[in-house]
Amino acid sequence: MSEFGKAGIAVRNIQRANADAVARLSGYGVATVHEAQGRTGLLRSYMRPIYPGAAACGTAVTVLAQPGDNWMLHVAAELIRPGDIVVVAVTTDNDDGMFGDLLATSFRARGAVGLVIDAGVRDAATLAEMKFPVWSRAICARGTVKATLGSVNVPIICAGMLVEPGDAIVADDDGVAVVPRERVAAVADAAEARDKKEAATRKRLAAGELGLDIYGMRDALAKAGLKYVD
Amino acid sequence: MSEFGKAGIAVRNIQRANADAVARLSGYGVATVHEAQGRTGLLRSYMRPIYPGAAACGTAVTVLAQPGDNWMLHVAAELIRPGDIVVVAVTTDNDDGMFGDLLATSFRARGAVGLVIDAGVRDAATLAEMKFPVWSRAICARGTVKATLGSVNVPIICAGMLVEPGDAIVADDDGVAVVPRERVAAVADAAEARDKKEAATRKRLAAGELGLDIYGMRDALAKAGLKYVD
Amino acid sequence: MSEFGKAGIAVRNIQRANADAVARLSGYGVATVHEAQGRTGLLRSYMRPIYPGAAACGTAVTVLAQPGDNWMLHVAAELIRPGDIVVVAVTTDNDDGMFGDLLATSFRARGAVGLVIDAGVRDAATLAEMKFPVWSRAICARGTVKATLGSVNVPIICAGMLVEPGDAIVADDDGVAVVPRERVAAVADAAEARDKKEAATRKRLAAGELGLDIYGMRDALAKAGLKYVD
Amino acid sequence: MSEFGKAGIAVRNIQRANADAVARLSGYGVATVHEAQGRTGLLRSYMRPIYPGAAACGTAVTVLAQPGDNWMLHVAAELIRPGDIVVVAVTTDNDDGMFGDLLATSFRARGAVGLVIDAGVRDAATLAEMKFPVWSRAICARGTVKATLGSVNVPIICAGMLVEPGDAIVADDDGVAVVPRERVAAVADAAEARDKKEAATRKRLAAGELGLDIYGMRDALAKAGLKYVD
Amino acid sequence: MSEFGKAGIAVRNIQRANADAVARLSGYGVATVHEAQGRTGLLRSYMRPIYPGAAACGTAVTVLAQPGDNWMLHVAAELIRPGDIVVVAVTTDNDDGMFGDLLATSFRARGAVGLVIDAGVRDAATLAEMKFPVWSRAICARGTVKATLGSVNVPIICAGMLVEPGDAIVADDDGVAVVPRERVAAVADAAEARDKKEAATRKRLAAGELGLDIYGMRDALAKAGLKYVD
Amino acid sequence: MSEFGKAGIAVRNIQRANADAVARLSGYGVATVHEAQGRTGLLRSYMRPIYPGAAACGTAVTVLAQPGDNWMLHVAAELIRPGDIVVVAVTTDNDDGMFGDLLATSFRARGAVGLVIDAGVRDAATLAEMKFPVWSRAICARGTVKATLGSVNVPIICAGMLVEPGDAIVADDDGVAVVPRERVAAVADAAEARDKKEAATRKRLAAGELGLDIYGMRDALAKAGLKYVD
Repeated sequence: MSEFGKAGIAVRNIQRANADAVARLSGYGVATVHEAQGRTGLLRSYMRPIYPGAAACGTAVTVLAQPGDNWMLHVAAELIRPGDIVVVAVTTDNDDGMFGDLLATSFRARGAVGLVIDAGVRDAATLAEMKFPVWSRAICARGTVKATLGSVNVPIICAGMLVEPGDAIVADDDGVAVVPRERVAAVADAAEARDKKEAATRKRLAAGELGLDIYGMRDALAKAGLKYVD
Repeated sequence: MSEFGKAGIAVRNIQRANADAVARLSGYGVATVHEAQGRTGLLRSYMRPIYPGAAACGTAVTVLAQPGDNWMLHVAAELIRPGDIVVVAVTTDNDDGMFGDLLATSFRARGAVGLVIDAGVRDAATLAEMKFPVWSRAICARGTVKATLGSVNVPIICAGMLVEPGDAIVADDDGVAVVPRERVAAVADAAEARDKKEAATRKRLAAGELGLDIYGMRDALAKAGLKYVD
Repeated sequence: MSEFGKAGIAVRNIQRANADAVARLSGYGVATVHEAQGRTGLLRSYMRPIYPGAAACGTAVTVLAQPGDNWMLHVAAELIRPGDIVVVAVTTDNDDGMFGDLLATSFRARGAVGLVIDAGVRDAATLAEMKFPVWSRAICARGTVKATLGSVNVPIICAGMLVEPGDAIVADDDGVAVVPRERVAAVADAAEARDKKEAATRKRLAAGELGLDIYGMRDALAKAGLKYVD
Repeated sequence: MSEFGKAGIAVRNIQRANADAVARLSGYGVATVHEAQGRTGLLRSYMRPIYPGAAACGTAVTVLAQPGDNWMLHVAAELIRPGDIVVVAVTTDNDDGMFGDLLATSFRARGAVGLVIDAGVRDAATLAEMKFPVWSRAICARGTVKATLGSVNVPIICAGMLVEPGDAIVADDDGVAVVPRERVAAVADAAEARDKKEAATRKRLAAGELGLDIYGMRDALAKAGLKYVD
Repeated sequence: MSEFGKAGIAVRNIQRANADAVARLSGYGVATVHEAQGRTGLLRSYMRPIYPGAAACGTAVTVLAQPGDNWMLHVAAELIRPGDIVVVAVTTDNDDGMFGDLLATSFRARGAVGLVIDAGVRDAATLAEMKFPVWSRAICARGTVKATLGSVNVPIICAGMLVEPGDAIVADDDGVAVVPRERVAAVADAAEARDKKEAATRKRLAAGELGLDIYGMRDALAKAGLKYVD
Repeated sequence: MSEFGKAGIAVRNIQRANADAVARLSGYGVATVHEAQGRTGLLRSYMRPIYPGAAACGTAVTVLAQPGDNWMLHVAAELIRPGDIVVVAVTTDNDDGMFGDLLATSFRARGAVGLVIDAGVRDAATLAEMKFPVWSRAICARGTVKATLGSVNVPIICAGMLVEPGDAIVADDDGVAVVPRERVAAVADAAEARDKKEAATRKRLAAGELGLDIYGMRDALAKAGLKYVD
C-alpha cells in the first residue's frame, strides 16, 4: 500500500468489485453484511445518514481531503463510474460542509449512487429532496477552499476503517460497512445464509419461543454461574 | 440494595408498580412527569428515541450487561411480563448494537412495550417499521458476543439515573424518566394537576398575556436588580 | 460594546435590521447567506433544528441566561416584536430544557418566528406540531429555576458567534447564520447573485459537465503538483 | 431511599463506615478496591485528580448541587467530621468552578481529607500547593451563585455511580471508587488477599514467566479457537 | 466592528491596554480577574495550559486562522510588541499543531509572553523546557500548510469569548480570561479589593469558622426552605 | 492484507523494521518524523502519554482486542522481542483499564519498550514510577475479562491509523506516529535533514529575524490579497 495517506495522486483506473456480486450484496443491510464477514468492516457509528431511509450499495471511489478544502472532490467527480459511492477521508478531524447540492448534481450525473464523508455536508434539505444518499459526521453550512492537494483513489482510513478503491460499500440507517473487493461474492453468500436463518428464527421468536431455548443458552449460562433468584 | 451492580443474578419475581397507576401516568409526557416528581428521575439527555414520535410507558425489567455482550438480554426476555419496558445499563461506556429486530420480535411477543438501553441498537429502520419504541445512546450495527454474565432485575444506574426493577418508565421525544414504584400514583396525581394548570396558562399566553404578569415575576425581577434601559 | 456579557439589563428599544432587507434575505438558505457574506456568521454546527424542514428568518432579540435558569426568557417575551427570533446564550455550557410549548405559545402570540438557543428545549413533539421552529444544542426535559438575572438585548456570543440585538438570523436544516444589522441588504444582494450563478452551474453539472472544467481548475491542480496515475 | 434526588434537605447525623475498616482500606489503590468488590463501585473515568499523586480515602459527605450554584457546599462544611471526603453531584452536567481555595481551607479546617466533584473547581494551583486532593470533571474559573437549594447527605449519583452518605471513598491517579458502608471491612479483606497474590505474580512475571502459563490460559485459548501462524 | 470575522487583513497599529494597568492585573489569578469584572470574560474551560504552573499576562495580538493552516501566525510575529500574548482563533474546529518551538522562538524574540490558541500545538516538551506558556485545546503533532489567508489584529471569538486586539489577557492553571482594553485599570482595582477581602476570610475559615456564618447564609437558607434532619 | 480485522489469529514471526534504522529514528520527535514522511502516520491526538516526558521508539507488536477484554495482551507478551512496542486496537470504542503494572512488568521482562493502546490503562502512578511509557485514550481502573478472542500481529487500525506488525513506532509528548517498516531508513534520513535545517532556522528566529523573510512569504501573501492596514 505504497500510496497510503499520500497527497497529490489521482488514480484513474481502479479495479472495482464485481458488479454482480455488489448487486447481490445490495439486498442485505449493514448489520447483516458486517456479521457475514466476521464482524468486521464497520465504520464508526458517528457516521449517520442525513435523512431517514437513506440506503446505498456501490463501489468505492476514495478521496483524501485536507481540512476545510474540497478541491479533491472535483477531481473525484471525473473518475466516478456508474454504481460508485464516493468515500471521503480528511487528514484531520473536520466538520466543514465539503459537499452540497451542486456536487451532488455532478456526482449523480456521473453515475454515483451515494456519498460517505468523514466531514460535513450542506444543502441537507435539497439532498434529501434529491434522494441523494449521504452519510456524514456532521451537517454544517461552513464553506471550504480549494487550495491544497489531497488524493483520489488511494487507500484511506475513513471513520476508523480502511477503505481501498473499488471495495464495496453498503450503507443504511444502521451505518456504513466496507467489504474488501475480492470478498464481495463470499460475503454476499454468507449474508444470504444468515438472512435465511434469521427469517426462521424470527418466526419462532414471534410465536413466543425464547432465544434461551432456540439458541440453547441455558446450559452455558448455568455453567457461567448465573443464579436465578425468586 | 445488596445486589447493586452485582453480576450473575437473575431475579424472577419482582414487584411491579401498580398497573392502574402506570396507566394513568401514561397520559403525561416526560417533561410533565419529571416536574411532577420534583424535577427528579430524568435520564441523561443523550438517550434519544430512534424514530420521531416514539412514546412508551411501562414497568422496568432491568438488565446489567457487559460491554459488547448482549447475553443477558436473552435472559431478560423470559422474565418480561406484558406492559414491561426493558431498561439496559452496561458496566462501561459502550455503543455496540446489542439489540435488533430479532430481539424486538421476541420482546414484543413476551409483552414488552419498549426498550431503554444505554448502548447501541441496530436494525433501526425495521424497528421503526415495527413501531417498537427504543431509546438508546447510539445506532450502531456492531454485533456483540454472548460470553460474560451480567444480571437481570437488579438495581442499575442507566444513563446517570437509578432504576429499580418494577419502577415505572415514561419515555417520549423529550427523553426518559423513571418513577419509583411506590410513587407512581402520587406522581400521576401531581402530573394531572400540573397539566390542568398548564392548560389554563396556555390559553392566557396564546391570548398575548405575559408570563411576567401571569406568574407575577415583575417584583422579584426588580428586587433582584433588573434594570430596563431604553 | 459596554454591556457585553453583563447581567441584569433589559434593553427595551433596539434597532432592528430593515424589514424589507430581511424579507429578501429570507429567500436564501443558510449556506448561501454564509458564503454571501464572505464565509462568516455561522453558528457552530451542534445547533440543530428540532424537526426536519424547520426554517426561519427574522431579527434577533438576544438573551443571556444563567445555567438551569430560564427567567430571562420571560423578560424577553415582552420585548418581542413581530418578525423577531429569540437568540439565547447561556453563561456556561448547559443542556437543560429552558423552553417548551408554553413559552412557544407566548413567543408566537407576541410575534416571534423562531428560537435559537444554546441550551436544551423540551416538549419537542408539541413544538413540531405547532411548527414553531427551534434550533438548539439538545432536547432535554430537565426543568429550570427562575432565580438569577441575566440580560435581554445585549450583545451575546451564541454557539461561538457574536449576535447583536437586531441582527438578522437565517436558520434552516443546515444550521444558523447571523448577518449584522447594517449588512443585511448587501448580503441579500450577494446571495441573490450567488443563487443565480449556482442555478446556471447546476444545469451544466446535471448535464455531465465537470466542475474541473466549469471552474477551470485543471491548471491550478497541475501547478500544485497533482499527478494522474493509471 | 426516599430522599433520593430530593432538594432541600440537610441530614445532620449519618452513619459512617467503620473508621478502622476505612483505615485498612486506605492501604490499597482504586484498581485493587474495585476488583476486590467484584468490579463494582467505580465512578466514570472522566473524574480525574487535579494534580499527579493525589490520593485519599475517607467517608462520604454527599452534596446534591444545582448547576452553577455552590450554596450547598457551605451547608456541607458544617456537617463534615474528621476523615470525611465531600462528594458532590449536580442535577445536570455542569463544569462551573464550584470549589476553590477558600472552601478547601474551610473543609480542611473541619477535617475533610478530600473532594470528589462532578463539576469544575478553580484555584487549581493553590489546591495543589495545599495538597488538598480533588477529583473533578473540569478545572474551570467560572464562578457560581448561591440561589437554589440542593441537599446534603442524601443518596446521590456522582459520575454514574450511587454514593450514599457514610460510604467509603477511595481515590488516586486511577480514579475514584465507592465502597458501601457495610461492606468496607469485607472489601479491605479481599483487597489484602488480592494484593498478596499479585505480589507473588509480579515476581514471576518480572523473572520472565508468562501470564499464559501462570494463569493457565493456553488450553482455554486453544479451545476458543486461537490459531498460531508462523 | 466592521472587520469582525473578515479574512485578508493585517492591522499594524493597535491600541494596547495601558501597560501599568496590565502590570497591576498580572498580580491576580484568572478566577479573581473573572470575578472582579462581574463574572465575564472567561474562555471556555477546554483551553488548558500545556504544562503545570504556566502563567501569563499581556496584551492581545489576535489571529484568525484557517483550519490546518498557520500562515497568519507568521504574519502576526512581525506585529508583536514586547508584552503581547498572541491569541489565535480558527474559522472552524481544528486541533492541528499550528505552533511549535520554532514559532515560539520567534515570538519570544519579538517580545511575546505567551500564546492562547483554539487549536493544537506541538513540540510540547520543548515549549515546557523553554517556559514559553501556551494555552491550547489540544497537543497534536499534525503539521499545517500555508495556503489560505486569515487576518491579524481583527476582533475574534476565541474559545467562545470575544477578544479585541489590545485587550488584556490573563492566563494560569485555571484557564484564560480577557479584560477589555479600557476596563483593565478598573478590573485591577476590583481584583485587589477582592483579594484583600478573601485574605481576611481565608484566615477565619482556616480557624474553623463557617462560611454559613461569615457570609450570613443561615437565614436565606431557611427562607428558601432548607430542612435539617437528624 | 487478508487477516485485516480478523479475530482468532496469533502470528509468531513477523518481519520487524531494521533495528539500526529504528535506532536512528529514535533520535527524532514525533512532529519531525510525521513531517519527514510527508505529514502522514500520525495517530489521533486523543492518544496521550500517561506521564510527562514519556518517550519511546520501537517496532510494533500489534493486538486486536475486544471491548472490556484483555486476553490477547497475554498472548502478545509471549511474542514480544526486545525493542518492541505493543500497539493495541479494540474492535469498538472502549476505555476499560486493560493494562496495569503486572502486564507492564511482564512486557518489560520480555523486552518491550512501551505500550500504545486505544483503550484505558490503570495503575498509572506505578507505571510512571516504573518509567514504563504508555500512550492511551484514558486512565481507568475498570477491570476486564478474558473471554473472547482477538488477534496478535495482524494489521490493525489504532486511533485512526493503520499499523502493521513490525512497523516502527515513535511516541513522545506530542503523540504517536507510525512509520511503515520498509520506509524507516528513508524517514530517518529525511528527519535528520529536517532537523538540521530547523536548527539553522531556529538561530535566525532567535535573533529576531522573521519567518516572513526566512521563508520568503511576503510575495505569496501579497498575491493572495493580504492587506496591511494601519
